[in-house]
Amino acid sequence: MSCLISDEDAKGVKVLENGIELTLQDGNNAVFEDCWLRDHCRCSSCYHADTCQRAKHILEIPESKITDASRNSSQLYIKWDDGHKSVYDIEFLSKFDYKSWNKGRTLKPIVWNGRDIAHKLMKVHVDKFLRTEEGVSIVFQHLLDYGVALIEGVEPTTEATAIVCKALGGIQQTLFGGMWEFTTRADHADTAYTNLPLAVHNDNTYFTEAAGLQVLHCLVHSNGSGGETILVDGFYGALKLRQHFPEDYDFLSKFHLEAEYIEEGHRHKYAAPVIRVNDDTKELEQIRFNVYDRAPMAFADSKQCRVYYRSLRNLARYYEDPENQWQFKLTPGTVMVMDNFRVLHGRTGFSGHRVLSGCYVSRSDWLDKARTLRLIQ
Amino acid sequence: MSCLISDEDAKGVKVLENGIELTLQDGNNAVFEDCWLRDHCRCSSCYHADTCQRAKHILEIPESKITDASRNSSQLYIKWDDGHKSVYDIEFLSKFDYKSWNKGRTLKPIVWNGRDIAHKLMKVHVDKFLRTEEGVSIVFQHLLDYGVALIEGVEPTTEATAIVCKALGGIQQTLFGGMWEFTTRADHADTAYTNLPLAVHNDNTYFTEAAGLQVLHCLVHSNGSGGETILVDGFYGALKLRQHFPEDYDFLSKFHLEAEYIEEGHRHKYAAPVIRVNDDTKELEQIRFNVYDRAPMAFADSKQCRVYYRSLRNLARYYEDPENQWQFKLTPGTVMVMDNFRVLHGRTGFSGHRVLSGCYVSRSDWLDKARTLRLIQ
Repeated sequence: MSCLISDEDAKGVKVLENGIELTLQDGNNAVFEDCWLRDHCRCSSCYHADTCQRAKHILEIPESKITDASRNSSQLYIKWDDGHKSVYDIEFLSKFDYKSWNKGRTLKPIVWNGRDIAHKLMKVHVDKFLRTEEGVSIVFQHLLDYGVALIEGVEPTTEATAIVCKALGGIQQTLFGGMWEFTTRADHADTAYTNLPLAVHNDNTYFTEAAGLQVLHCLVHSNGSGGETILVDGFYGALKLRQHFPEDYDFLSKFHLEAEYIEEGHRHKYAAPVIRVNDDTKELEQIRFNVYDRAPMAFADSKQCRVYYRSLRNLARYYEDPENQWQFKLTPGTVMVMDNFRVLHGRTGFSGHRVLSGCYVSRSDWLDKARTLRLIQ
Repeated sequence: MSCLISDEDAKGVKVLENGIELTLQDGNNAVFEDCWLRDHCRCSSCYHADTCQRAKHILEIPESKITDASRNSSQLYIKWDDGHKSVYDIEFLSKFDYKSWNKGRTLKPIVWNGRDIAHKLMKVHVDKFLRTEEGVSIVFQHLLDYGVALIEGVEPTTEATAIVCKALGGIQQTLFGGMWEFTTRADHADTAYTNLPLAVHNDNTYFTEAAGLQVLHCLVHSNGSGGETILVDGFYGALKLRQHFPEDYDFLSKFHLEAEYIEEGHRHKYAAPVIRVNDDTKELEQIRFNVYDRAPMAFADSKQCRVYYRSLRNLARYYEDPENQWQFKLTPGTVMVMDNFRVLHGRTGFSGHRVLSGCYVSRSDWLDKARTLRLIQ
């Protein structure tokens, strides 16, 4: 150890029976277990720094004891009873104070209702989005905060839309393809491929994992009217339900509702709660609300059946309330992006020739981008 | 009603206060709630038979009462107090007896350990797989039963492998691309892209949804030896853990273990239990076991930290036990497919020039194929 260490620094570590007590950078003391410390040794025989992966299997990591611990202001030195030596940055260790670490793991959505959301969203020009960290950060921060973002100045072609989609995380392949163009031609067995109105819903409730983002770009709407987009924050309705109908919230966050998608050559099916709550962080994780794609289900008893209908209707009322919805007309040039785990989308009926382009982006891929931008941990 | 109905048939329906009691085809009586029946009316104003989707929003479905019910041997006729009339096939209604319906929803994996699995797997020739319902059904039934399937006679090229992958459900796009070729060149920051041994693990524990299937085809292995494939049934180890270390099983099926994947431009991260149990059906749903990709985590207290290491080690011992593993050499021509939600894979270290081709298939996409083949509901 260096002789430059002040007594105070050197004092800030104590060997315990099963670990150490360490004074962190914020002055607080924290306990680190010996098993944790050995698992997090960052020497080259324990850790591949180039791949950020451990070099040793958990069964190869010795369950050894600490024989000595010392420190200076920035590093901790551990000697083990099998002769191994470890060095840790105190800054690294400071990240693992449980309370602040745990807090950093949750997303912090800002719940909204109604058209006021329009004033909170900054429309980002496509050049700024594609070429500047500020531009891409605004878009991803909007997605994290509100579940919606708008990118303008996009050439109304599928090719230009695809470039935006790739920058949002990548084009997800599904039975609907990668990039799609969406008209009234019935390419798929879905009401979306008609000119009928569509009540607000989440897509892909029948996939084992629904699409993370939906990207929509109206390329053409000629010789007709209608076709306005309707968005509603699924979290807002869920939280209102929790407040006013706690039993219904409880039911919808536990009961596995089965959804299905059937067309020639395809039978997707999945059952999960309509309101998915993370059982660790307790945060709202996903809304799976689609009244059209519900599969016929049997119920355990009459009560379960009746609570199912009551709960769904009570939740649906929040989503169908025009006060909670944001309705607007998408025009060529503006790409709309929404978080399909949270925001429900629909449209009014329309006449004329209308072409939408867009795609899905997987949740892992868009959160990856947000994390790389350091917007979330 | 037709005058051809026998008295017995006509008798088999009774109007209750909130629904009907109906004698099903198997002779058992079942109760159907009025709300369920109205929701499942299959007339053209309530249901789009072409898209298998409901035509009405749940708030548009009237909460009406049944005024009359009658039947013949194959159909049930309901009159509603708002004048609507519904007709149901008794065969359709018979599917919704809760007990048998609920039973039909679970998968029925056949748990295995060790090399004997090799004798249970029928190798299917690629022509039989691509061109016959029998061939494709054997492959998908093996995946459902054992989580592994082998397809032989495939030309050792990425193009020929891609044709197999498409028939397995489609090529999943991830940060690793779609179809990949896998050599010792470090295209990605992952130990897989070296010639080091790899202990058995599941892929993508850091994605919000891990890949469903992994497809591997050894195209070339020249001027060297080693590189044997190791497979182990993750469900077997989990069930053994439940039997011998119930506290550890309980911990690993509840505690959210965080995994991460970091390379330039990417930061994937996800936390979920190592042993995911479906909280509705109680079946084992997914094993997320990868000791290398564990993210550094903080723990609530010393006990949680120590139980974490003890549980992981106890589970790892089943997976690392050679008695439980199946080790074999993949050779050009044979495509191996495995269920990444269940089967762990690894390899022994190797020398020489070795090229693997393959891809991921999403879980939704391969289960879709199995469902279309009527192997599952």
